[in-house]
Amino acid sequence: MTQTLDPPTTASPQARTDAWLASFEEALRACDVRRAAGHFATESWWRDLVSFTWNITTVEGPAGVADLLGETLERVDPSGFATEEPPDEADGVITAWFTFETGVGRGRGLVRLVEEEGETKAWTFLTTLFELTGHEEPRGTHRPMGAQHGADKHRTTWLEKQQEEAASLGSTTQPEVLVIGGGQGGIALGARLRQLGVPSLVIDKHARPGDQWRSRYKSLCLHDPVWYDHLPYLKFPDNWPVFAPKDKVGDWLEFYTRVMEVPYWSSTVATSASWSEETQEWTVEVEREGQALTLRPKQLVLATGMSGKPLTPVLPGQDVFRGDQHHSSAHPGPDAYAGKRCVVVGSNNSAFDICGALWENDADVTMVQRSSTHIVKSDSLMDLGLGDLYSERALAAGVTTEKADLIFASLPYRILHTFQIPAYEAMAERDKDFYERLEASGFQHDWGDDGSGLFMKYLRRGSGYYIDVGAAELVADGEVKLAHGQVDHLTEDAVVLADGTELPADLVVYATGYGSMNGWAADLISQEVADRVGKVWGLGSDTTKDPGPWEGEQRNMWKPTQQEALWFHGGNLHQSRHYSLYLALQLKARSVGIDTPVYGRQEVHHLS
Amino acid sequence: MTQTLDPPTTASPQARTDAWLASFEEALRACDVRRAAGHFATESWWRDLVSFTWNITTVEGPAGVADLLGETLERVDPSGFATEEPPDEADGVITAWFTFETGVGRGRGLVRLVEEEGETKAWTFLTTLFELTGHEEPRGTHRPMGAQHGADKHRTTWLEKQQEEAASLGSTTQPEVLVIGGGQGGIALGARLRQLGVPSLVIDKHARPGDQWRSRYKSLCLHDPVWYDHLPYLKFPDNWPVFAPKDKVGDWLEFYTRVMEVPYWSSTVATSASWSEETQEWTVEVEREGQALTLRPKQLVLATGMSGKPLTPVLPGQDVFRGDQHHSSAHPGPDAYAGKRCVVVGSNNSAFDICGALWENDADVTMVQRSSTHIVKSDSLMDLGLGDLYSERALAAGVTTEKADLIFASLPYRILHTFQIPAYEAMAERDKDFYERLEASGFQHDWGDDGSGLFMKYLRRGSGYYIDVGAAELVADGEVKLAHGQVDHLTEDAVVLADGTELPADLVVYATGYGSMNGWAADLISQEVADRVGKVWGLGSDTTKDPGPWEGEQRNMWKPTQQEALWFHGGNLHQSRHYSLYLALQLKARSVGIDTPVYGRQEVHHLS
Repeated sequence: MTQTLDPPTTASPQARTDAWLASFEEALRACDVRRAAGHFATESWWRDLVSFTWNITTVEGPAGVADLLGETLERVDPSGFATEEPPDEADGVITAWFTFETGVGRGRGLVRLVEEEGETKAWTFLTTLFELTGHEEPRGTHRPMGAQHGADKHRTTWLEKQQEEAASLGSTTQPEVLVIGGGQGGIALGARLRQLGVPSLVIDKHARPGDQWRSRYKSLCLHDPVWYDHLPYLKFPDNWPVFAPKDKVGDWLEFYTRVMEVPYWSSTVATSASWSEETQEWTVEVEREGQALTLRPKQLVLATGMSGKPLTPVLPGQDVFRGDQHHSSAHPGPDAYAGKRCVVVGSNNSAFDICGALWENDADVTMVQRSSTHIVKSDSLMDLGLGDLYSERALAAGVTTEKADLIFASLPYRILHTFQIPAYEAMAERDKDFYERLEASGFQHDWGDDGSGLFMKYLRRGSGYYIDVGAAELVADGEVKLAHGQVDHLTEDAVVLADGTELPADLVVYATGYGSMNGWAADLISQEVADRVGKVWGLGSDTTKDPGPWEGEQRNMWKPTQQEALWFHGGNLHQSRHYSLYLALQLKARSVGIDTPVYGRQEVHHLS
Repeated sequence: MTQTLDPPTTASPQARTDAWLASFEEALRACDVRRAAGHFATESWWRDLVSFTWNITTVEGPAGVADLLGETLERVDPSGFATEEPPDEADGVITAWFTFETGVGRGRGLVRLVEEEGETKAWTFLTTLFELTGHEEPRGTHRPMGAQHGADKHRTTWLEKQQEEAASLGSTTQPEVLVIGGGQGGIALGARLRQLGVPSLVIDKHARPGDQWRSRYKSLCLHDPVWYDHLPYLKFPDNWPVFAPKDKVGDWLEFYTRVMEVPYWSSTVATSASWSEETQEWTVEVEREGQALTLRPKQLVLATGMSGKPLTPVLPGQDVFRGDQHHSSAHPGPDAYAGKRCVVVGSNNSAFDICGALWENDADVTMVQRSSTHIVKSDSLMDLGLGDLYSERALAAGVTTEKADLIFASLPYRILHTFQIPAYEAMAERDKDFYERLEASGFQHDWGDDGSGLFMKYLRRGSGYYIDVGAAELVADGEVKLAHGQVDHLTEDAVVLADGTELPADLVVYATGYGSMNGWAADLISQEVADRVGKVWGLGSDTTKDPGPWEGEQRNMWKPTQQEALWFHGGNLHQSRHYSLYLALQLKARSVGIDTPVYGRQEVHHLS
């Protein structure tokens, strides 16, 4: 079959896309790496989620494409590239959804085609694996029957099977995958592994699934809206609140865990873990409801929160301070602090939420700002930041959650900030009055190092921002007092700043953030393994708290690390939903013995 | 505006539908009842679900339409009839979805148009109310915000509101609607009332929502498939089994109750109820976890099961029989009966299920068939009986659950059997071998009085059939023994039939069916009220166990009865889902003082 690489650009978007896909596939089939790479524009990105690379990785330009294909093409056996629906064209860019197959699975992708020197070339190219051939999930037309029709003297009921499985797990049977941490991340992954038939176990220290949310301060609601927050398989119903209250989220997670039949041990902590090269398995010591036992999984997933371990400053005078002091993650809520003098060190999300709740409970509240913070109004963020992808408006336009996830994933991290900057410029304009009042109050505000706003800060450093649901107005209005600078020391009844300012205090909350997730590995496994894995999260953007070199992807998240069989999972509900698929497919492939050579395994540049 | 009633039949289905709707609406607007009725074919049906009639009712032919409109048109103020999507035409029938408005709400309908003497006329016309104007449900674009943005010193959290509401309900606040029975019916209705903001309470005798299912015999699975079984608002996920095991259904119902925030009291029984004309409220004595208290709802819904109260025959010798004997509804499952001689009296669903489970548990089982039973193979029923409306195939063809419910509702009960007969003829052909073997075993099999099969039997009498998931094969194969005739008496250790046959027995199960639901009203309220309400269920089809005269709708279900403020709700999951909407809208209208004159309130022809 001969395909024309260059149909006239007057051809329809469908014809141009078909021609590009066919020509690209032909080059792949011929194992002609150079020719295949020639299908990409000079400035271009190929992001692959597990389908070609058994990794989450982005390569840049024809040279990057050639490198990726040079190492992977022979075994991947890609074929069947075809559009799923008619491509769109706007501003000289054709956007096309397509499906394809590899030797082991089925994929879906999104390509943006541009014209370069008269030829149609890929500008961005996303490839994702969504199922392994022969290991399709039992869903829809392949859902389980449930009832075993017929008469059978040795029938085991669903309940009996559940009970038998629960009784044997951890004693006579071992989970292949142990997921430590049963918040939304662990549960979403657990549900996917259950669907894929990978024997797994999720453990969590809390008494019930959902307690991760229930145990937090009482006025907490999700800062992300419902359309962004769905878990896999079971969407929130359309009467679900835009910003769900924490206890309702807790109930949903508990419900979801049971309905999805996720094997889940509550009141369970892992105390140590070690990997044996010899047996190729982990030895994990856990305490389940106080009883010690040993698990021997083949794969270990840390889903203990992208925030990592709490960072609490060590300060002179903490031993003499007579009031309460604790890290924000241990803050019990405002109930005990009505009328008390409260100093909250920090000015990010947690600091604002806690200041707001304390103020609402009639405390005297001072926020200590140590460095500038980025603030956006929740309404504006929802509308200008997320509305095209995650909203009723998006749904009405045919942008399902699944499509939104892939559209978002298709924007290369290298240039993502350029898409973000205009949205934040629009927010600055829309909420001009607010920012003027905020700055007049003395608050130090920024828009990120390059003006790209909240989501880039989230991806780069996971901190440095607040989505204003009300508390920023308290600062702007002076209802919550503001102080600046580093804390120098504490006295018996005050926080003293570097400039000598003394803030009388009955309570000090250290809203001072979290370390890298590999801190969990240091505690659980060893410092050696934590160092081998290196820093988790961040893009290597060479911006504040995200040192270079450029990584191209979030460090160590949902993909192979430098420690065999150790994985990190987490992030917000959106990431937990979407990336749990790729992590689950990687684990499934290993479980059934599919060869999974990793292309472009991340090097380690930073220890934490 | 002048509309042509009769465009040439060569006009498109869209044009013909538009013309019919416009002309019909014009006649309505002119309050010209006779002209409006002239839009209906000689043989035609208008089925209205609450939108015109504040009733669930069907009228027949132009005369019936004229009667309905004569009594309702003046206050209904219908307008805005417009197609929702392009109509279909097949076999000379145009099928069109449309929306419309009334003075108080918004409706959706389905009309089938035919040509009669050169004019386009309605053959079937379904009108349904889906929301009350000004009382729209908070869903989708109108979903609640959840978080209360801003800072508020008197903020009450979601959890606190839930707790306060739970604490006050039944003491300082009264439910406007009390729903007795918290199975799928009560829960579905409770969810709808919650959504509509009607203060309600669902009470149930079991310890937890879902126990209605959990407490049944262990091998039970739903006999209806997943696509038919969704509850309102939250569909089962696509990994849900086709025929869900009972404990999984129980878990779903429990969490659904929580997620939908249905006010629900477990371990609660109603001991008596009486209606006061004077105060226009019920006095209902209940025992909640053993504590007596009085509730004073304005509306009382009995959702205690469409099966009504168990009917157990009174037989000589029951007092001397030394084994176990109980009604099928009290059967504890087979565990205690391995190796025992079990006699199951009856040959419908419960009898087969129990015989099958006993046989699986190595009991010696005899079924006593008293009259003929209709049996269909589950697979054939799913494919030929439900597949066009409720299946993956239907979904792929665009028939959503919501559309399927309305399509099904649009088929007039008067002629529904004519649609059913061909499907059952096809089943008879497909499963010919099975029926031959079954009859060779001596089993008396029928297809309903008019050959219309299972669903008509369900609607007419709610009994007389078995969906074979295996146990019928045991009878056909002789693994479960078969006896015939009425039971004459019991001895110490046997069941003796009218013909003298003696069946040695350690266990007798009376799978002898249930009475009419108004029996619940007799127990709870009074025999007088039960008699005033009359028989519940059935169509008046003048077939076995469904005496005439013709009623046109199911007696007393989901609609006003002869007892003010007393309602019956129930049925299978499909009916609980769909008809709970119309019952909830009727209750909401009464709650907010909308005038609800009932057209065609059912007369009572039978007491039970």
